[in-house]
Amino acid sequence: MKLLEERILRDGIVKDGDVLKVDRFLNHQMDPALFLEMAREWKRLYADCGVNKILTIEASGIGIACITAQVFECPVVFAKKTKTKNIASDVYTTSVRSFTHGTTYDVIVSKEYLLPTDRLLLIDDFLANGAALDGLIDLSRQAGATVVGAGIAIEKAFQPGGERIRREGIRVESLARIRSMDNGRIEFA
Amino acid sequence: MKLLEERILRDGIVKDGDVLKVDRFLNHQMDPALFLEMAREWKRLYADCGVNKILTIEASGIGIACITAQVFECPVVFAKKTKTKNIASDVYTTSVRSFTHGTTYDVIVSKEYLLPTDRLLLIDDFLANGAALDGLIDLSRQAGATVVGAGIAIEKAFQPGGERIRREGIRVESLARIRSMDNGRIEFA
Repeated sequence: MKLLEERILRDGIVKDGDVLKVDRFLNHQMDPALFLEMAREWKRLYADCGVNKILTIEASGIGIACITAQVFECPVVFAKKTKTKNIASDVYTTSVRSFTHGTTYDVIVSKEYLLPTDRLLLIDDFLANGAALDGLIDLSRQAGATVVGAGIAIEKAFQPGGERIRREGIRVESLARIRSMDNGRIEFA
Repeated sequence: MKLLEERILRDGIVKDGDVLKVDRFLNHQMDPALFLEMAREWKRLYADCGVNKILTIEASGIGIACITAQVFECPVVFAKKTKTKNIASDVYTTSVRSFTHGTTYDVIVSKEYLLPTDRLLLIDDFLANGAALDGLIDLSRQAGATVVGAGIAIEKAFQPGGERIRREGIRVESLARIRSMDNGRIEFA
């Protein structure tokens, strides 16, 4: 998506260790006008797929997912981070490994909000190793819901998550796919 | 706001300890159509106040704030929870006490995203003891920004935060003000 690529080139900052900082418009300060255009693009890509609910993960996916749900005219659910091992019977739980922080955390979703009849679009800001998306797919499967696909803002295509998850048969639509960030220069796939 | 009050009566659940669960539409599963009407109401209340930025706090404020920013046609910034005492010079930091969890946590905002020229509308889902709102006000003051006011979805008017913060001279517009929840019956102010 041209608009997002241009914004990444203008406002993104490449840091050491293949880190792309986009907190000027995507995940700290957020631009709702940009999110609306992204949501419209996912709506075009997933037209006639019967999406009835958006699923995302705390925290930086929530804003994008909420505007996307507005365009799809459906509710949005976010998987909540939890500090304690949650063994409550009324939630689905999965573990997500954070490669950035070298930690693993649990996220939960109330069973009430993920149903076998749901046709889910999974939304997140980044896809790199795919850990967060794996978590959302796992929660969806626990609920017996259908994953229509994923909508990702920025995919680091030089990391393995996107290819692996597509190979598993999940449709992944990333609006900007970065092929490399060598020497601080961003190249899109 | 009638629409929100009706939704609370229909889908809210009163639990022991003055807990109101609204995670069916506000802070776990979220209804973007409701958020849009809430945002329009704040836009009506804060018309001609020159709001140029929305400030909220991770995580449950993000969705509401993002749709509100869309209506105000401005960016939104969310204060991020941080596990480590952050002494970086490029962020403002404040401590927020969680009465629900009996803990205190730090939140940060990049100095780049809060400016002395900013006229901020502070958005959050709940106002009870006022700790989260205090944190947002403190961050705004550190930046030298102007707090135009706060937009709260649900105020527990039987708890002291709202009255105290209004006494400090901050305008607070809560779309649903709960006077009491005795015996599980919700009464609005």
